[in-house]
Amino acid sequence: MIRPLAVAMGDPAGIGPEIVAKAWKARELHSLPPFFTIGDARAVQRVWDGPVREIASPDEAEAVFAEALPVIQIADAGAIVPGKPDVDGARCAFQSLEIAVGLTRAESAGALVTGPVSKAQLYGVGFTHPGQTEFVAERCGVARNNTVMMLAGPSLRVVPVTVHVPLAQVPELLTIELIVAKARGAARGLHRNFGIENPRLAFAGLNPHAGEGGAIGREEIEIVAPAIAQLREEGIDATGPFAADTMFHPRARAGYDAAICLYHDQALVPLKTLHFDEGVNITLGLPIVRTAPDHGTAFGIAGSDQANPGAMIAAIRMAASAAQHRAELAAAGAP
Amino acid sequence: MIRPLAVAMGDPAGIGPEIVAKAWKARELHSLPPFFTIGDARAVQRVWDGPVREIASPDEAEAVFAEALPVIQIADAGAIVPGKPDVDGARCAFQSLEIAVGLTRAESAGALVTGPVSKAQLYGVGFTHPGQTEFVAERCGVARNNTVMMLAGPSLRVVPVTVHVPLAQVPELLTIELIVAKARGAARGLHRNFGIENPRLAFAGLNPHAGEGGAIGREEIEIVAPAIAQLREEGIDATGPFAADTMFHPRARAGYDAAICLYHDQALVPLKTLHFDEGVNITLGLPIVRTAPDHGTAFGIAGSDQANPGAMIAAIRMAASAAQHRAELAAAGAP
Repeated sequence: MIRPLAVAMGDPAGIGPEIVAKAWKARELHSLPPFFTIGDARAVQRVWDGPVREIASPDEAEAVFAEALPVIQIADAGAIVPGKPDVDGARCAFQSLEIAVGLTRAESAGALVTGPVSKAQLYGVGFTHPGQTEFVAERCGVARNNTVMMLAGPSLRVVPVTVHVPLAQVPELLTIELIVAKARGAARGLHRNFGIENPRLAFAGLNPHAGEGGAIGREEIEIVAPAIAQLREEGIDATGPFAADTMFHPRARAGYDAAICLYHDQALVPLKTLHFDEGVNITLGLPIVRTAPDHGTAFGIAGSDQANPGAMIAAIRMAASAAQHRAELAAAGAP
Repeated sequence: MIRPLAVAMGDPAGIGPEIVAKAWKARELHSLPPFFTIGDARAVQRVWDGPVREIASPDEAEAVFAEALPVIQIADAGAIVPGKPDVDGARCAFQSLEIAVGLTRAESAGALVTGPVSKAQLYGVGFTHPGQTEFVAERCGVARNNTVMMLAGPSLRVVPVTVHVPLAQVPELLTIELIVAKARGAARGLHRNFGIENPRLAFAGLNPHAGEGGAIGREEIEIVAPAIAQLREEGIDATGPFAADTMFHPRARAGYDAAICLYHDQALVPLKTLHFDEGVNITLGLPIVRTAPDHGTAFGIAGSDQANPGAMIAAIRMAASAAQHRAELAAAGAP
């Protein structure tokens, strides 16, 4: 039995409080495991009239969960106004994240789910990491380059080898070593978090038609194919490179467990085309399970009851499922 | 009433004969207009046991169409073997295309639909153009740079500003002028071929998150936004640049008539993710209507009755619809 999950509320002026509350409300419909949130109870009560109860420790979460949304309150969260981010809210988001990571690291919580934050806001209160993922990695003692970002929806998982870099820099950043490292992390992560014993990885090419045999670019021949060959020698089921535009229709998706993509939009465009309201970001390579809904704070609709909790619900379900898979592997004596 | 459409069969050793025949068979189900094909009647009969009838001229097509697939036979098409492309078949494909273009230019046919060819095969029989599109443009007296390739499915139309170039070259190829020219062609093409009076064009950014205000690349600020501003000054409904991964879910797609994308896979990945078996390539900027199914010869499955005629059916329907829109505009005195 896994411990209740820790859900960092994210920026309390964003849609975080609303989607956490709506996820709790839908807990039976979606068979959600017990979870508690960390942040500001009043921020939830501003946007939702359901039951909320403060708890002092994760130990109380399971009993409370049946009747109310359990909240670990951050002191001095300030006067939260939906849609109006401010310094107090940013500090609340920062502290929520810090405590949620700590509780999960300490195994007081079974997994970590992080709500949406505003990086611009966080930078104003002393946050110095590029994003929540890097912060979590550091707190877990893992070099950020050893983590792998995977985006997952009901019918597609994608891993971008490069992420938040200008497109013009992508070709020069791609190396055999980088692709191999990300793919190894993806394969290991699919095993540990999804219970897939021999994950099938399909690789996208960089150029139109995957370079058409070198006629439209040589990265497939010089970088991607050698990386695939190396991975296959290591026993990983790696195939491609494929023309990216032929990889994401239903029949193609049935042929792999994750698509390894070479740049942000190559991965995110198909994922969000198919699963805009239910995409989950899962960080592979950490000692803890960490997921997040793959969307932002949406300040523009905060407080108006329009936020779709689908991705938060999916993030909670995936976190619980991953924690369960890890527990089973640990019980079986896997490393 | 538009004239029967000319359907060039494509490489007779590919799936062209099969999908043309299956489209004819499904003519009532899909309300297809009368069409005839140009190529090799025996190639059809090898893969299909339905009625085929040779005709000498497009004038005979309409009467025959009700009872059999009308075929204008290419002389000396050789011994066609499905899945085994050869010189005779390539010559047949080349001549089919030449005749189909000529009949459409002469208004003996109402529109041109081209089946899939193998460029490698065509190059062996004296074809010197990069693809069928450029050949058709030349025969129509239009500079190839003045044509615009649009890919269209039931719920999405996309225009790639750059096409078959290595990804590394895309940033340097993008200019305000190129984007403006392609967008103008798209707007005009949406009016002439789809009857949309004031087409809404949504532009994708080049970089992750459309550059995030310059933090992840500056092409959006320096090239795409100025192009959009110029188009708006000309009265074209142009919006963006948007983060590409937020543009293709159903709610987003409802907001525009075509997405202007900056490179091949940015356009083709969402189109084929959604509409792999029904994508149509339509060439805008020509004096004639020209469409094509957005797939290749599929030599690997030729002759095995596995080919899906969905894209060919969609290409025929779109060609007829475009010809109808043009006829109505001409009747109304539009240029």
